[in-house]
Amino acid sequence: MLRLNSDLGESFGPWKMGTDEAVMPLVDMANIACGFHASDPLTMQYTLGLAKKYGVTVGAHPSYPDLVGFGRRSLACSMQEITALVSYQVGALLGMATVQGVGVSYIKPHGALYNDMMVNEAIFTAVAKVARGYGMKLMILSGAANARYETLAKTLGVELLYEVFADRAYTKEGLLVARSKEGAVLHGEEAVKARIDLLLREGKLVCETGDTLTLKADALCVHGDNEKAVELVKTLRAYLDAWKS
Amino acid sequence: MLRLNSDLGESFGPWKMGTDEAVMPLVDMANIACGFHASDPLTMQYTLGLAKKYGVTVGAHPSYPDLVGFGRRSLACSMQEITALVSYQVGALLGMATVQGVGVSYIKPHGALYNDMMVNEAIFTAVAKVARGYGMKLMILSGAANARYETLAKTLGVELLYEVFADRAYTKEGLLVARSKEGAVLHGEEAVKARIDLLLREGKLVCETGDTLTLKADALCVHGDNEKAVELVKTLRAYLDAWKS
Amino acid sequence: MLRLNSDLGESFGPWKMGTDEAVMPLVDMANIACGFHASDPLTMQYTLGLAKKYGVTVGAHPSYPDLVGFGRRSLACSMQEITALVSYQVGALLGMATVQGVGVSYIKPHGALYNDMMVNEAIFTAVAKVARGYGMKLMILSGAANARYETLAKTLGVELLYEVFADRAYTKEGLLVARSKEGAVLHGEEAVKARIDLLLREGKLVCETGDTLTLKADALCVHGDNEKAVELVKTLRAYLDAWKS
Amino acid sequence: MLRLNSDLGESFGPWKMGTDEAVMPLVDMANIACGFHASDPLTMQYTLGLAKKYGVTVGAHPSYPDLVGFGRRSLACSMQEITALVSYQVGALLGMATVQGVGVSYIKPHGALYNDMMVNEAIFTAVAKVARGYGMKLMILSGAANARYETLAKTLGVELLYEVFADRAYTKEGLLVARSKEGAVLHGEEAVKARIDLLLREGKLVCETGDTLTLKADALCVHGDNEKAVELVKTLRAYLDAWKS
Repeated sequence: MLRLNSDLGESFGPWKMGTDEAVMPLVDMANIACGFHASDPLTMQYTLGLAKKYGVTVGAHPSYPDLVGFGRRSLACSMQEITALVSYQVGALLGMATVQGVGVSYIKPHGALYNDMMVNEAIFTAVAKVARGYGMKLMILSGAANARYETLAKTLGVELLYEVFADRAYTKEGLLVARSKEGAVLHGEEAVKARIDLLLREGKLVCETGDTLTLKADALCVHGDNEKAVELVKTLRAYLDAWKS
Repeated sequence: MLRLNSDLGESFGPWKMGTDEAVMPLVDMANIACGFHASDPLTMQYTLGLAKKYGVTVGAHPSYPDLVGFGRRSLACSMQEITALVSYQVGALLGMATVQGVGVSYIKPHGALYNDMMVNEAIFTAVAKVARGYGMKLMILSGAANARYETLAKTLGVELLYEVFADRAYTKEGLLVARSKEGAVLHGEEAVKARIDLLLREGKLVCETGDTLTLKADALCVHGDNEKAVELVKTLRAYLDAWKS
Repeated sequence: MLRLNSDLGESFGPWKMGTDEAVMPLVDMANIACGFHASDPLTMQYTLGLAKKYGVTVGAHPSYPDLVGFGRRSLACSMQEITALVSYQVGALLGMATVQGVGVSYIKPHGALYNDMMVNEAIFTAVAKVARGYGMKLMILSGAANARYETLAKTLGVELLYEVFADRAYTKEGLLVARSKEGAVLHGEEAVKARIDLLLREGKLVCETGDTLTLKADALCVHGDNEKAVELVKTLRAYLDAWKS
Repeated sequence: MLRLNSDLGESFGPWKMGTDEAVMPLVDMANIACGFHASDPLTMQYTLGLAKKYGVTVGAHPSYPDLVGFGRRSLACSMQEITALVSYQVGALLGMATVQGVGVSYIKPHGALYNDMMVNEAIFTAVAKVARGYGMKLMILSGAANARYETLAKTLGVELLYEVFADRAYTKEGLLVARSKEGAVLHGEEAVKARIDLLLREGKLVCETGDTLTLKADALCVHGDNEKAVELVKTLRAYLDAWKS
């Protein structure tokens, strides 16, 4: 089954980001920011309330400590630091969720930490151990590293969730095409629907060269940055629901 | 029974505060900072490890968000903000503790939040509800507000822990004598031992006027700011242990 | 002469606030955030560039250190702390402005610091001394405290700028009507134009009771929170320009 | 002439670091932290006061924004971000210094930013341009990159100050021996005095292999981390003063 997931709760203090009220009812899984790249205690409380209202599965979305850089800049942390800062953020969200009667079932690192984890096994291991400590799954970018990371995860005793991006082009090797390159983003709902179709029917994805990749896919990442984006999410929601029935 | 408690884990990044390694083995309860007035994820992890090593009961020590001011400055928060920021900090500590196999059984607000809670029932109520949400006790300053706050706590369904300061003078009304006034701090271990004696035998405390106050006391707050202070804690530890046997 | 001023440069990292590109060309004076309640070094650099482009007079807009609360919450600082934190923020903006060939000519505290300054002479004095140290003017809320603060400012050797709000109702005593009360905000451009007219012709303002207040007015504060607000600013700009000629 | 310089003003809020009161009277140049890796407005004000009292030349000591990591962790910033954050910090210190009647004459980046600048010309260029904007000199690590960076600095119109570490071993290539290697730190005042002697007589330094390096040296970096370190600084101060006369 393919579930829609989205990074939510990324407002901060008086600054609003995204359209959480519109997106939350449309997705299956919400990756909720924990205060290090975005969000704050009040925003987390509110976002958890939204997730509860719509019965959305909650994941923790921890980051390097870098509000002003939105967690997009790599920070040269020691593994001990990564363990501690992920553990702190997941605990904060879990505690607030528990008090509201909501569970937290997985961890998806944010931004630079997510990217660093996908190319650095030591960082992957540090984050995976925190997930194991909390009894949570770990969401990773489905692609080139799948086989290697699956083996590692088994050794570590952690279950993985594989995330595919709804509208990003992939290289033949199973990496995301850099945003700076032409064709990095799929345009139009038909292209995304075709991707969903192929993923659901054959577990495959057409990459930029036209070749197909075999790609595990538990979650399809969507964004609700603006009204037009939300419209696409609505369409995908309906499309997936039709598939299920 | 009177237990020794201390505010611990108040280092931050490269800056060290206190003598946690010396004090932790001597106390029964550790009020551990949660990152808003002091501490950081690595320091919290380390401090929880120390508490586990010595079998010390852990409490969360949340604060207004004010690192540079060490949480000593009142911040005009809404009750929603207080609920959220206490909930966040307690959750972070609880999560990290749980992963280490340690429990967190109570909340003691820090600094200005502690003082504000003792004179503002709305703040007390907000904090108490978080404690209830987490199934934790709430530690308050034993004194003038005891009867009123006990009634409130019962209504709210929260159990209180009463804290008495080992070496601070009290007014006849059961308030702490301001540090700026002469005689605000008891000097010498004999004075503190006499206080312990009276608390244990009769549940009373001699205030600055020489009158006695009847004062509940679950926990006696001690500090390990320097070597001399640690010596006093050692003495009190031995004194209390002798009492028990 | 009555000049339009606006609080600008209040975005933070990835989060945008306001419509600076639309408002900057319309105002005479820009109160630029300095990183403590909003903004960051990149945003300050950009906002200073905008001010330079349109020849707008720059003022520093310092705040209590409270990003998540947007500087709207009072923080119980010592006067030394206020001196230091205002001095730091003004210096940061002044340095960056100087490097860009732009001057900074006045200080207007933000949010809770602005409000606290208007009711607490010690805070006013602390801020005014920083203004004197930098050779800048100090912008205050024109109203009930004018006579008293003018005397104080003369003693301190600081020149004041008097700010009137374009669209806020005033009490008979020269205070702003609380936002929570009905009629706190003037609606429609006609009401604001009438206010401008009376201020320019007679130096007076009609308060909520219908009585008139005599009120010094150097700067009229306008906001560009959204498109509609920007339209009002455009109208006021044109109206004031017509007055001048 | 060889001058003693030290990183000072690195306390933060309630946390003290170093022995500034003991070191300030002994050095010629103080690299003062600006709030991003250490210090805060009050501490900066105090440190500037100390520098003024002892007539010590002031330099700005800006860092990546990373208090908890003390600026020791590389942060993947864009050049625009580096320009802005260095500019902000230098401006803040300069403003506060100016108000106190003190000048700021150079910039020495801190920690990871210092190291990154020495191996990345783009970062060096970004920082050097800020120095030029402020009309300040730029202090760099004297060593392998001298010739290249001197040429670059000339092109950019910035004057360099060359810093040599009093007690660190150098490789044959003019790099610091990593702290993790044996012999990375010189022990004993005789070794440091011999280094000073050779630098002053011949402009040379003995590296770990026993070979000599020709090394420009404007400033000798010393530390006052503890009482013993301060004793060494005292000895070096006296030694240098004897040299001068």
